[in-house]
Order: sequence, then structure tokens, then C-alpha cells
Amino acid sequence: MTILPSFSDIQTAHDRIRPFIHRTPVLTSKSINQIVGAELFFKCENFQKVGAFKFRGACNSVLALSDEEAKKGVCTHSSGNHAAALALAARMRGIPAYIVMPENAPEIKKKAVAGYGAQITFCEPTLAARESTLKKVAAETGATEIHPYNYFNVICGQGTAAKELIEETGQLDILMAPVGGGGLLSGTAISAKAMLPNVRVIAAEPAGADDAFRSFQSKTLQPSVNPKTIADGLLTSLGSLTFPIIQNEVDQIVTVSEESIIAAMRMIWERMKIIIEPSSAVPLAAILENKVDVKGKKVGIILSGGNVDLGRLPF
Amino acid sequence: MTILPSFSDIQTAHDRIRPFIHRTPVLTSKSINQIVGAELFFKCENFQKVGAFKFRGACNSVLALSDEEAKKGVCTHSSGNHAAALALAARMRGIPAYIVMPENAPEIKKKAVAGYGAQITFCEPTLAARESTLKKVAAETGATEIHPYNYFNVICGQGTAAKELIEETGQLDILMAPVGGGGLLSGTAISAKAMLPNVRVIAAEPAGADDAFRSFQSKTLQPSVNPKTIADGLLTSLGSLTFPIIQNEVDQIVTVSEESIIAAMRMIWERMKIIIEPSSAVPLAAILENKVDVKGKKVGIILSGGNVDLGRLPF
Repeated sequence: MTILPSFSDIQTAHDRIRPFIHRTPVLTSKSINQIVGAELFFKCENFQKVGAFKFRGACNSVLALSDEEAKKGVCTHSSGNHAAALALAARMRGIPAYIVMPENAPEIKKKAVAGYGAQITFCEPTLAARESTLKKVAAETGATEIHPYNYFNVICGQGTAAKELIEETGQLDILMAPVGGGGLLSGTAISAKAMLPNVRVIAAEPAGADDAFRSFQSKTLQPSVNPKTIADGLLTSLGSLTFPIIQNEVDQIVTVSEESIIAAMRMIWERMKIIIEPSSAVPLAAILENKVDVKGKKVGIILSGGNVDLGRLPF
Repeated sequence: MTILPSFSDIQTAHDRIRPFIHRTPVLTSKSINQIVGAELFFKCENFQKVGAFKFRGACNSVLALSDEEAKKGVCTHSSGNHAAALALAARMRGIPAYIVMPENAPEIKKKAVAGYGAQITFCEPTLAARESTLKKVAAETGATEIHPYNYFNVICGQGTAAKELIEETGQLDILMAPVGGGGLLSGTAISAKAMLPNVRVIAAEPAGADDAFRSFQSKTLQPSVNPKTIADGLLTSLGSLTFPIIQNEVDQIVTVSEESIIAAMRMIWERMKIIIEPSSAVPLAAILENKVDVKGKKVGIILSGGNVDLGRLPF
């Protein structure tokens, strides 16, 4: 039987990573509140180290290793925020990080990961090549594989963002997060349900990458097939750990259009003067589409990150 | 003899406007500090009401009016942040604001000012038309003209940003601000020199709009002739109040290229995940151009605002 994380595991994670993470601010916007007729509380993980909540889970996973395990290092395949987060967490513990990246990954991402001191192995840009290359790297080095989301200590780390948010806001009627692989969402849901018994946890997902929505509706894990969305952090499928947590703890999953994601992203940039990546805008997009009834309610929203390519903006 | 503001006038202004303004955060960036080899403290007026420091001066000016004056309202000609700031300040006091705008002002700016409840009078897009239209409006309404920068209480209000910054940071070696008409710079310099006797106050200006630099060097007020810069808040010339303050209180004015302004703006967007307008990036641009020696020093920088047209970004 698989053991799923509980809130006490998230508390342990928080105690472990607290000295190393930023306690990110919770921001509000009077003008967005007026537009939506609710009180929104944005947890700003775009200000987290490496620019995304991913550092919480990576940091927790690296710090939870025994000295024996740690000295052999950690590895993963990723071209995104998790790779940078794992590289930084490993450097902070003084251990090696081995990152498998597709050879066609953007230069800027290769540089970022290399800049955090990781050893990069390039492979062909297919999932099969990524997985087989990672297997080889792990076998050669003895490094511990840290999956981007389907990993106990990653989920526990991600849950600390919602924990901090609720510590600051107190009672919330609704707590929203975007969903990709479900690491952030499952950690968020565990914290929310433990801390606020009456809160509704609602996930938002791009209609163009709606595997979590379909899995949730059908109660069977559905793969993400040819996902297409500007929210490039949300292309992945749920995993064997994240799916059961989401089934148990999440109240609703809603989908949104690309147009709404871009409009919500622009609204946050213009009104709040902060930079968020498209994935962060998905919950507000759901509110703007009236997929979630927020009128008069207190709503927490996790802004997942702020890493965007300024040369390729959708406005 | 013209009476110039002193620090006690800025203290009075601060007491007056404190309940109405945002006390904006002071942010730091480890990675920018590493790049420049200094400790930079950014005062984030991009998070101020209406998205710019201009609200401080407008608010102070509106609140300083007698009831008699106030009930006739305030007026100005501006198509920028000052117009929005004055409109909001007037609405908060419940008095009329009359704004003269060129008929070719961007729709988004017309809407913003109208959204704050101001009465807009359009005119031909020449300085002569703006001034004569404003004169007419003032004569008809009896409204008090609040100049965007060459106005005692505006300067006092703008000086409260530096005051808050220094209250937070304590000792600074250098304090930097951009310079356009000099309202922000002169208020900043008065606060800095009163609070930190050994601080160097350094202004940064686009080379394409270098009237303040030329005025400072030649010790004679020089007009801004055909200024051209992406930093659209810095196109104006110094005034009869701001120039003598700057002569007395500012240590140095440096100029920077357009390329450096864009690079500095991008650096702040990417590394700090906050949105600033080009004018805000001018002091960091001067540091990146090595126009200011900051190595090992504590440097305060006023980020003037965050109002940018996302449809026309320079990246």
C-alpha cells in the first residue's frame, strides 16, 4: 500500500526548509477585488528562490536525504523550474545534482541550471530518451532520483506554500491552485483541509491540457495527450501519488481557455505590477470565466511562479 | 525671494498623507547585488497608488488646500501619472479635478484618468494649447493649478518616498533617483541630506533627454529640446523651484544610453519579478554603465513607477 503524505509531514517539511526558503508575501489588489467582487489573497511564489514554488519541494527532498544518500547526489529529468530548484537545493547542501535535459531545451534554461552548478546530460527530446538517460545517470552515480511531483517529499514541500498563506490569512472560503502534475495541488489540499475544515479546494487547469479534469471526473488516471497551452508548467499528467490525494482532498477542478489565461496574466501584471508566468494566472482565469462562484468570499490563490521569457510574451 | 521646501515641510507632508498612501516595500535582489558588487535597496513606488510616486505629491497638494480652495477643485495639464494621481487624490477628498489632455493622448490614459472621476478637457497636442486651455479651465472654475513638479507641496510629497526608504535602511552611502522635471529628485535630495549627512545623492538621466545634466553642469536652467527616450516620465525640463534645490543638494547627475535603460529594466523584471516603467530603470542603468562607483557600498534607489504599455515593450 502506498503511504500518502499527511499534514504532519508538511509541518516537518516546513520546519526543515524554513531557514532556506523565502517566506513569500501575500498580496492583495483592491482593483482586482472590485472587478471580481471578492477578497483575493495571492501567495506570491513568483518571489520564491528560482522564481517558483518548486524550490520548496526540491529543498525538502534534498534535505531529507541521509548523509549516505546525499553524498551521491540527486538527479532528475526536467527542463523547467524543478531542474533549477533541484540544482540550487543540491548546491546549498554541497552535493552533486545531475540533470537530464533534452538537447533542444532553450539556451536560457540550460544556462540557468548550469549556473546553479548542476551537471547536465543532454539527450534526445523524447520522453523515452529522457527516462533511459536518467536511468543510466542514476546507475552510474548512485544519485537519488527526485521526481518533479510524484515524490513524497516534493509534495510535502509544496504544501508549505498553502500553510504559510493560511497562517497569514486565517479563515478562507476557497483556496485555488493550478494543476499540472499535481504536486502543488496535492500539497495545497492537504494543508488546506487540515487547517481549515470548511474550505473548498478548487483546482484550475487549461482546457488544452485537461488530463487532471478528466481524471477527476472519470475517477481513473488519464494521461495528458498532446497537451497544448501557454501555461507551460501544466503540461504534465497526474501521478500515482498525486492523483489519489487529489481525489480525496480536492473539491472541484475547472478548466479555462487560453484567452482567459492571457487576460488574467495581463490583469495581474497591470494591476499588481508583479511578473507571473502563465501557469500562475490559471486560477484567476477561472474566476474571470465565472467557473468558480467567489462573490463576497475570501479566496486564497497560489501564484506558482514568475519565470517567463520576456522575448515571447502573449500581449 | 522664492521659498524652497525644507525637511520639516516633508515631515509635515508625510504626517498629512500617511493614512492615504501605501507605505511601499523596500526590496533587495541577491543576484543583482552580485552582478553590481554592491547592496542595492529598491524603494518600490511601482506599488504606490496609481502605480507611481506621483500620488504622494498630488495627495499632499490636495490635502494642503483650505476648504475654501478645495471646494473649487484642482486642475493640471498632463497625460501621464500626475493626471491620474491628481484625479484620485481629488476624488478621495471629494472635490473636482479638471485635467487638460492632448486629444491624441493614448486611449488607455484617457480611460484611467476618467476612471478616477476627473473631468477631462481635450486640446491640441501642443504645449501652447495645453497651457492656454488650462488657463481657461482655471479661470472658469476657480480650481487651483497643481503643477506636476514645480510646486511646493508636490515636491514635499515626493520627498516622503526617500524618507520612508531611509527610515527602513538606515545609513546609505549613495541615494539615486531618476530626474525629469526634478520633483522626485529635489524631494529625495532634501530628505537624504537631512537624514544622512554623508550620503551622496546622484541623479540619473537618459542621454536623449539630458537637460538636467546640462543645467547642472552649466549652472543655468536649460530647456529640454526635442527629448527622445523610452523613459517617457523623464521628458520634461527642470523648473524654477526644482533647479535651485538640485543645485544645492544633489552631488552628481549622470546620463545613460537607451540600451542600458532597457537592459536595466529587463534585469529588474527578470530577477525581481516586478514590473517597473523605463524611467524607474535609469539609476540601475547608470550603475550597469559604471557611471557611478558603487563597489562595496550601500545604495538606495527610488523605483519611480510601474505603468507600462504591455503591448509596446522594448524586449
